[in-house]
Amino acid sequence: MDNLTDLSQIGEFGLISKLTEGTNIKNSSTLFGIGDDCAGLSYKDKIVLVSTDAMIEGIHFDMTYSPLKHLGYKACVTNFSDVYAMNGTPRQILISLSVSSKYSLEALEELYAGIKLACERYGVDIVGGDTTSAKQGMLISITVIGEANKEEVVKRSGANINDLVCVTGDLGGAYAGLLVLQREKVSFMANPNSQPDISAYDYVLQRQLKPEAQKTTIEWFKSKNIIPTSMIDISDGLASELLHICKASKKGCELYMEKIPIDYQTARTLEEFKILPETGALNGGEDYELLFTVSQKDYDKIKDEKNISIIGYITEENRGCKLVTPQNTTMDLKAQGFDHYKQ
Amino acid sequence: MDNLTDLSQIGEFGLISKLTEGTNIKNSSTLFGIGDDCAGLSYKDKIVLVSTDAMIEGIHFDMTYSPLKHLGYKACVTNFSDVYAMNGTPRQILISLSVSSKYSLEALEELYAGIKLACERYGVDIVGGDTTSAKQGMLISITVIGEANKEEVVKRSGANINDLVCVTGDLGGAYAGLLVLQREKVSFMANPNSQPDISAYDYVLQRQLKPEAQKTTIEWFKSKNIIPTSMIDISDGLASELLHICKASKKGCELYMEKIPIDYQTARTLEEFKILPETGALNGGEDYELLFTVSQKDYDKIKDEKNISIIGYITEENRGCKLVTPQNTTMDLKAQGFDHYKQ
Repeated sequence: MDNLTDLSQIGEFGLISKLTEGTNIKNSSTLFGIGDDCAGLSYKDKIVLVSTDAMIEGIHFDMTYSPLKHLGYKACVTNFSDVYAMNGTPRQILISLSVSSKYSLEALEELYAGIKLACERYGVDIVGGDTTSAKQGMLISITVIGEANKEEVVKRSGANINDLVCVTGDLGGAYAGLLVLQREKVSFMANPNSQPDISAYDYVLQRQLKPEAQKTTIEWFKSKNIIPTSMIDISDGLASELLHICKASKKGCELYMEKIPIDYQTARTLEEFKILPETGALNGGEDYELLFTVSQKDYDKIKDEKNISIIGYITEENRGCKLVTPQNTTMDLKAQGFDHYKQ
Repeated sequence: MDNLTDLSQIGEFGLISKLTEGTNIKNSSTLFGIGDDCAGLSYKDKIVLVSTDAMIEGIHFDMTYSPLKHLGYKACVTNFSDVYAMNGTPRQILISLSVSSKYSLEALEELYAGIKLACERYGVDIVGGDTTSAKQGMLISITVIGEANKEEVVKRSGANINDLVCVTGDLGGAYAGLLVLQREKVSFMANPNSQPDISAYDYVLQRQLKPEAQKTTIEWFKSKNIIPTSMIDISDGLASELLHICKASKKGCELYMEKIPIDYQTARTLEEFKILPETGALNGGEDYELLFTVSQKDYDKIKDEKNISIIGYITEENRGCKLVTPQNTTMDLKAQGFDHYKQ
């Protein structure tokens, strides 16, 4: 590629204004955005929800197979997901970007194209940021701000005995996609001229590289007057997240292995890697589906919704957290989820 | 040091809860903090102010001379400063920490001791965070959330012709401190047994390693019913910040070099490094003083306040931004401030 612009030609101030060009404000809660020491927001009687998540090159993504635009999109969506997990709506983000000089202005513009696209689709305003140089690699740290009506905020701690345990979409796909990418990277490095046929993995690759957050589920809850009793987004794997809900709610659970929703392509890919699909779905992270509990009185509203699976129920704390196999044997539910420090 | 705890022994979830131990909520705007996908805040009719700033090892700090506790303190204070610069009060922070495995749990606890101390002193709640592993080094990215009354928010863009240009405290100290630290690091590396006598530099070292933000100035404004017409905090140097105000306000200015407040130790240290004290004060960053403009009608309230210096005034835009020397010669005000990409 020719004529790439070195970051040192622009300087820090130039970079921030260049990258945030063309972002206009969509939410009435955004009073003013980039251009002062702080952005100014107005939330009145709404609860303000805030969360932060970082993605680091070499840990959370690998530049050899993460297109920059997808990376920007994913960094946003994973943050929006935290707000949806509280039954809220994301409204603003602040972006803290740390990049080494190996990245050109054009590379960062590509990253920001993904950020802007995600913000456009989810109706979120970019209200601030900080761009600093790093000695190596790239780090994207995003803080999301959102809102919820006070009586509609859903925490992890509200699950009641006999509540239904539900999950949106299907699980294990993002993990399956990661396995494919890691394998193809290896095969590509062995033979740089090989062009792997990845069309057979389109769904799982999209789950890994360009996930979506559960905006439509939250809107569907509102349309049906459903307020989950507890909720969490699945970033570290179903088992780990369900244990979080049970711990915060001081409850136990029974989870039925055969009820876990798994896409056909995900199952086939995991089997190719000699991984039991249910194991991949239980422990693979980054699906960004919602795991939630609802009262049994909401069963009729939930049961026919195609995008929601009922996978278990909540029990007394002293019964523990259990996984029930198709053979009806019961074992302790264990989190073998994603933990960067143990990898 | 013996018996340090390796981060891999704890894991990511353990680390977050371990580091935030003993943090209790001080503000009524904090409804709930750590433990869910988001923290929940309530701001009613106040303007919500948000900002984010990152500090990176090897770029913003050097572990050979930055004690971890001071580093945590400084990371917080620099963010609080952004809220004070809007005439607001910081209330909550989210901490995104990225660390390599060379750091032990005890090192991070030391860092958090500084974070907690700053939050205690400034009355700020820690409401969330994200801790991830890095391939090397440390990055601390903090998002601060604060509040201001709608009619009291001060932006960069409000300076009017004939307004007084004022600055709190004194300038150039943090830069002088950095020069001393960089020199002593070099001399220490040449002779590891040398113990540099740094007592002669106590003030400038403190300005660099453990700065404070202008909480008392904001409180003083309120007590005197002063609302500045424009304001910014001095992180990149006086010249750069005054140019930001003039650009945002579409005005010019005259800045009197001899009026720039400089501490005696700062001046002496800068001269030791063959730097004109005024040059160091104009271009040295990280002082975290406030630069602001007020209407001339507030002159009587300002003139006797020891911590505030009147250093110039605002002019028509077409008169440009000018620096007036003690010899009464006038030159263009130029920003030679801190710009990471150009270093």
